[in-house]
Amino acid sequence: MSHAALSPAQAKRALAPDRYFDPEPRQKAIALELYAGIAQLPIVSPHGHVDPALFADPDRRFGNPVELLVQPDHYVLRMLASQGIAYEDLLAADEPRRVWQLFASNFHLFHATPSGLWLTHELADVFGIQETLNSASAQRIYDQIDAALAAPAWRPRALFERFNIEVLATTDAATDTLEHHQAIRASGWGGRIVPTFRPDAVVNLLVPGWADNVAALAAVSGVQIVDFRSYLSALEQRRGFFRSMGATATDISATTPATTRLGAREVDALFAAALRGEVTAGAAAQFTAHMLWEMARMSVEDGLVMQLHCGSLRNHNPTIFARYGADRGFDIPVAAEFTHNLRPLLDAFGNNPKLALILFTLDETVYARELAPLAGAYPALRLGPPWWFYDSWNGMRRYFDQVIETAGIYNTAGFNDDTRAFLSIPARHDVWRRAAANWLAGLVVRGMLGHDDAQNLACEFASGLARRAYRL
Amino acid sequence: MSHAALSPAQAKRALAPDRYFDPEPRQKAIALELYAGIAQLPIVSPHGHVDPALFADPDRRFGNPVELLVQPDHYVLRMLASQGIAYEDLLAADEPRRVWQLFASNFHLFHATPSGLWLTHELADVFGIQETLNSASAQRIYDQIDAALAAPAWRPRALFERFNIEVLATTDAATDTLEHHQAIRASGWGGRIVPTFRPDAVVNLLVPGWADNVAALAAVSGVQIVDFRSYLSALEQRRGFFRSMGATATDISATTPATTRLGAREVDALFAAALRGEVTAGAAAQFTAHMLWEMARMSVEDGLVMQLHCGSLRNHNPTIFARYGADRGFDIPVAAEFTHNLRPLLDAFGNNPKLALILFTLDETVYARELAPLAGAYPALRLGPPWWFYDSWNGMRRYFDQVIETAGIYNTAGFNDDTRAFLSIPARHDVWRRAAANWLAGLVVRGMLGHDDAQNLACEFASGLARRAYRL
Amino acid sequence: MSHAALSPAQAKRALAPDRYFDPEPRQKAIALELYAGIAQLPIVSPHGHVDPALFADPDRRFGNPVELLVQPDHYVLRMLASQGIAYEDLLAADEPRRVWQLFASNFHLFHATPSGLWLTHELADVFGIQETLNSASAQRIYDQIDAALAAPAWRPRALFERFNIEVLATTDAATDTLEHHQAIRASGWGGRIVPTFRPDAVVNLLVPGWADNVAALAAVSGVQIVDFRSYLSALEQRRGFFRSMGATATDISATTPATTRLGAREVDALFAAALRGEVTAGAAAQFTAHMLWEMARMSVEDGLVMQLHCGSLRNHNPTIFARYGADRGFDIPVAAEFTHNLRPLLDAFGNNPKLALILFTLDETVYARELAPLAGAYPALRLGPPWWFYDSWNGMRRYFDQVIETAGIYNTAGFNDDTRAFLSIPARHDVWRRAAANWLAGLVVRGMLGHDDAQNLACEFASGLARRAYRL
Repeated sequence: MSHAALSPAQAKRALAPDRYFDPEPRQKAIALELYAGIAQLPIVSPHGHVDPALFADPDRRFGNPVELLVQPDHYVLRMLASQGIAYEDLLAADEPRRVWQLFASNFHLFHATPSGLWLTHELADVFGIQETLNSASAQRIYDQIDAALAAPAWRPRALFERFNIEVLATTDAATDTLEHHQAIRASGWGGRIVPTFRPDAVVNLLVPGWADNVAALAAVSGVQIVDFRSYLSALEQRRGFFRSMGATATDISATTPATTRLGAREVDALFAAALRGEVTAGAAAQFTAHMLWEMARMSVEDGLVMQLHCGSLRNHNPTIFARYGADRGFDIPVAAEFTHNLRPLLDAFGNNPKLALILFTLDETVYARELAPLAGAYPALRLGPPWWFYDSWNGMRRYFDQVIETAGIYNTAGFNDDTRAFLSIPARHDVWRRAAANWLAGLVVRGMLGHDDAQNLACEFASGLARRAYRL
Repeated sequence: MSHAALSPAQAKRALAPDRYFDPEPRQKAIALELYAGIAQLPIVSPHGHVDPALFADPDRRFGNPVELLVQPDHYVLRMLASQGIAYEDLLAADEPRRVWQLFASNFHLFHATPSGLWLTHELADVFGIQETLNSASAQRIYDQIDAALAAPAWRPRALFERFNIEVLATTDAATDTLEHHQAIRASGWGGRIVPTFRPDAVVNLLVPGWADNVAALAAVSGVQIVDFRSYLSALEQRRGFFRSMGATATDISATTPATTRLGAREVDALFAAALRGEVTAGAAAQFTAHMLWEMARMSVEDGLVMQLHCGSLRNHNPTIFARYGADRGFDIPVAAEFTHNLRPLLDAFGNNPKLALILFTLDETVYARELAPLAGAYPALRLGPPWWFYDSWNGMRRYFDQVIETAGIYNTAGFNDDTRAFLSIPARHDVWRRAAANWLAGLVVRGMLGHDDAQNLACEFASGLARRAYRL
Repeated sequence: MSHAALSPAQAKRALAPDRYFDPEPRQKAIALELYAGIAQLPIVSPHGHVDPALFADPDRRFGNPVELLVQPDHYVLRMLASQGIAYEDLLAADEPRRVWQLFASNFHLFHATPSGLWLTHELADVFGIQETLNSASAQRIYDQIDAALAAPAWRPRALFERFNIEVLATTDAATDTLEHHQAIRASGWGGRIVPTFRPDAVVNLLVPGWADNVAALAAVSGVQIVDFRSYLSALEQRRGFFRSMGATATDISATTPATTRLGAREVDALFAAALRGEVTAGAAAQFTAHMLWEMARMSVEDGLVMQLHCGSLRNHNPTIFARYGADRGFDIPVAAEFTHNLRPLLDAFGNNPKLALILFTLDETVYARELAPLAGAYPALRLGPPWWFYDSWNGMRRYFDQVIETAGIYNTAGFNDDTRAFLSIPARHDVWRRAAANWLAGLVVRGMLGHDDAQNLACEFASGLARRAYRL
């Protein structure tokens, strides 16, 4: 394991202590001070997609550098693909060093992107690599990572502890038995990993295999699903089970945030038709809209926080989907409308403080126009952090800029890393904490916020808001 | 009236002389200089909702601090409500000190919001309170405000003069007799307070009591309203009366800026049906669209400036509306489209310099895409300032950023405070003047604007543009 | 040719060496250094509307200052018109000095606009005029420009060389014989001026004179157009001819980016109906959507880069259009949707690296929501630079801010000046180069990008990205 000596400038660039902050010296000094007060706070990760199996077996280790950092990361794959690199070359299983070389030789594509910042942070902070990743350094860095991954200190549980994670929420299908969560609990290990109830596969009638999913739901819940009422009972049973396993939240996704309350007969007929395999796109949309209403009702009853992720048109590229499946970087946002769409749900539950509905969007135009005014008025609403493409330095800046003046700070829900890339969690929270510190420093230096208030609010952004919004 | 000693830092924070400005020293020095040149200019307030009755009686005084600062302010109410505080606790009439305590204990909810800046400014500048409002200081500050309000110097007319208001426009129903405006004139007091003609209640066919409003319009105008023609005559009569009372402008609001010119028969039939109580949502929308056209025509004829406020879905929360009425913080914006919608009106009057049509939006996406290109071409158009949720430091920054390069400075209409909270007027104009000075300083320091030009333009933003756009 | 002495401050303001850059000293120093590395690079102008006739005759000279700088510039005309100046006064042919005086007396309308910056740059840099243009200086400056235009050094070819233009692409109708391009080639002059194939007038069935245009297409291509198949053949013949004349790209514009693949019978019937003069708006929209698909197919086959400009509602003002024709400043943007609309085209060709499709928008809301995710994934897509109203300092800032984190730098296409105002080309590229240097300096000073990488990327933005995207 050899690597070239670093010039001080290179080493400094990799992870400068004052990185990301706006350059004006007075503001930066305040930002640094605010950040220093929160840098060591434990990570609260209330929403993400890390595989709980990583932590079920104490001896589990990660795969090779490519299996770890390249192939599962659709942010990385799609950027390489966009410049003409074939998926089949990237997803080749047998020659990881060749894939790594391809990745490293094209690492310049990630200049000025969040993936570039996260990967640089991971290499430096998780693996101690100060060298820039490029064509020349590729194999050296591969060696370094590979060697580290063999060591106990780089096993998932060890990194969980090194990362100082207070709680990590996974996302789990309604039909999941949560066996890995059970194994974690049974093992006596102290890491807090909680499930999140995600019923998409049994709610969206257009999901391939919906009927099988419903059959699985019946089996796992022990509720015979013969009609809409028993379907709801099965869901309620599963929510109870998830709660017993530590879940504090649900998550549901939909292309649009349309909500409605169908009449009992209408929804019964719709569900019965779906069981018979008769589903139109319109019927599926109506069913999802009604199910958002039912999910809110259940949250009022059982206290689980409701998350709603809207606005992604999944699998936009049929060729890539057919060949490589979902989550390959071709989920493309569409415009979303919340003011009209959420009204039926809010009419019923918007004033009810038992509901905590956290909204996410891929359409920033609704931040200031719709989401901030809604969350700044309805007690049941909170705004989730910048999501997906907006989980970035500028995305966060635009979020603070467009949301806070109207919604206020306390109607936001802190940060989600929302990642399946476990190793990127500290990097992602670091960007958020620095963005919050930088934004607060901008208020302090403009006389809009007192210094003590700013320090308290920095703690809120780092973890307090998330802990409260998710009832953790 | 006792209050705790202030540390210099606290006192400084309350109203720092360089507050809000960007921190780069060269730019800030220019901003301070530009601001110094306009800070003392009289306030021109061409659009707002202050009650003229405040000024009709020279001995009129304000109510208690809660009646003055909390209960009528829907920006304040909705933020408190969004965090689960009940409207009934906030609107209790009998225990103002308890309401004030609730407000003060939650004043941190207004961190980084315009309401927070305005209230801090009002407390410091209008009442001389340097202390931060919070749970501990609540009753002390209540005492201070209450004592001040008893004194002659805090009566509405005295404050009007202290605030150095050159002209204040109110907003008045088409059926209003303007008795308070008449009383102000009759009293011989020198304050210039002018009405604005707002016909919404007789134009929007879906307003509850529309037929009664039309009957009232007939009564007050002396025109028997039997058909659309006589209805227009009655409106024209009222416009003439408003003009005779000093009005220079009208204001009309609509959910969308749809305009159309219906045929004579069509509009006659539609109006006749409405008189018979037969109105559909579609017919009401068509009628409003046609009335926008008629309002523009009347403005060409009588020279009254036409204001159009679009994009708010009023009373989104039926529970709050049923219990507490309108203007409680639940008016939520929707997307607006101007390019297609305004075309029928602009086809007829867009090139006519006799028309001055000032546009407002709650959908910022149209600033750069539609409004700036339209206002940068049609002689009849001007853009109003950032409205409502966008009447904020960042809202102003985004407005300058997205509007001016295409529309130019001279196609904008200066500032509106648009408030019913009389005491907040200086604070609101102060934010605007500082925002304009800051933005202009940014141009000067980038070599995009000469220093002398910037000083002239600062005066334009402070009052010149508004005075010209509103023909005051 | 006399003019007043300049104070140093005035001269400095006209074209300060550090103009436009953000003021923070460390960042500005980096920006200046990055800019110094690219300021002298030759101009690559891959898309614009300069008349090739200017260069066909070596002795060609420009007209008077008004014919050169005012009357053909719809950015200038519309701003003057928006303040009530009549088009007939601006377009008067017989009294250029009176028109110039009108323009100069209103030059303050261009404060803080791109036109203001470009014109100031042109006067200073092309004509050596340091004085501010205003009412008093108008005739002196007219004299200076007029005198210069008489001199050989201000002839089009001389300026082309002085401007250091490496390549200039014009935009030419599908029916154009490219006689001026032929004359340029035949003259032996070394300036590289290439045509761009723009078939709008034969694709958009609603264009007045479409049938005549198709007849002209048949004549110039030598292909008898009797059906859709022969129509396509004629287009393919012309593309081949354009390629032989140096073209590397096509350009097509549409109100929306809707694409579709119609069945053979459907499109045959639609085309046959159009030849018979039977066209509905719906049919025309469908035909354009299908032709976008065909244009992509042809690009795959012949390698011409495909440009798509969407979102302008042309000739919004019928009065001005009737009297003064197109391109008078009344083309107003409308919202655009790309995620759904482009899907049929991308399904067929999105993964094909032989296609290079460069997208332009007048609706900035799609930058981050749709265009960056699409271009950051599909190999065939690149994003064009900020277009038209967004070709401005803040427009560029917003573009970098909203596009790059998701699309990456290498999926963008560098800069287009997109102008018919030949003299403004250096000014426009200067704004872009400074904007890029300023943005990159912001990354460097925040530790997000290494200094050497930034210098390389500055070169990419200045010309490399454009050269590659346009296959020049």
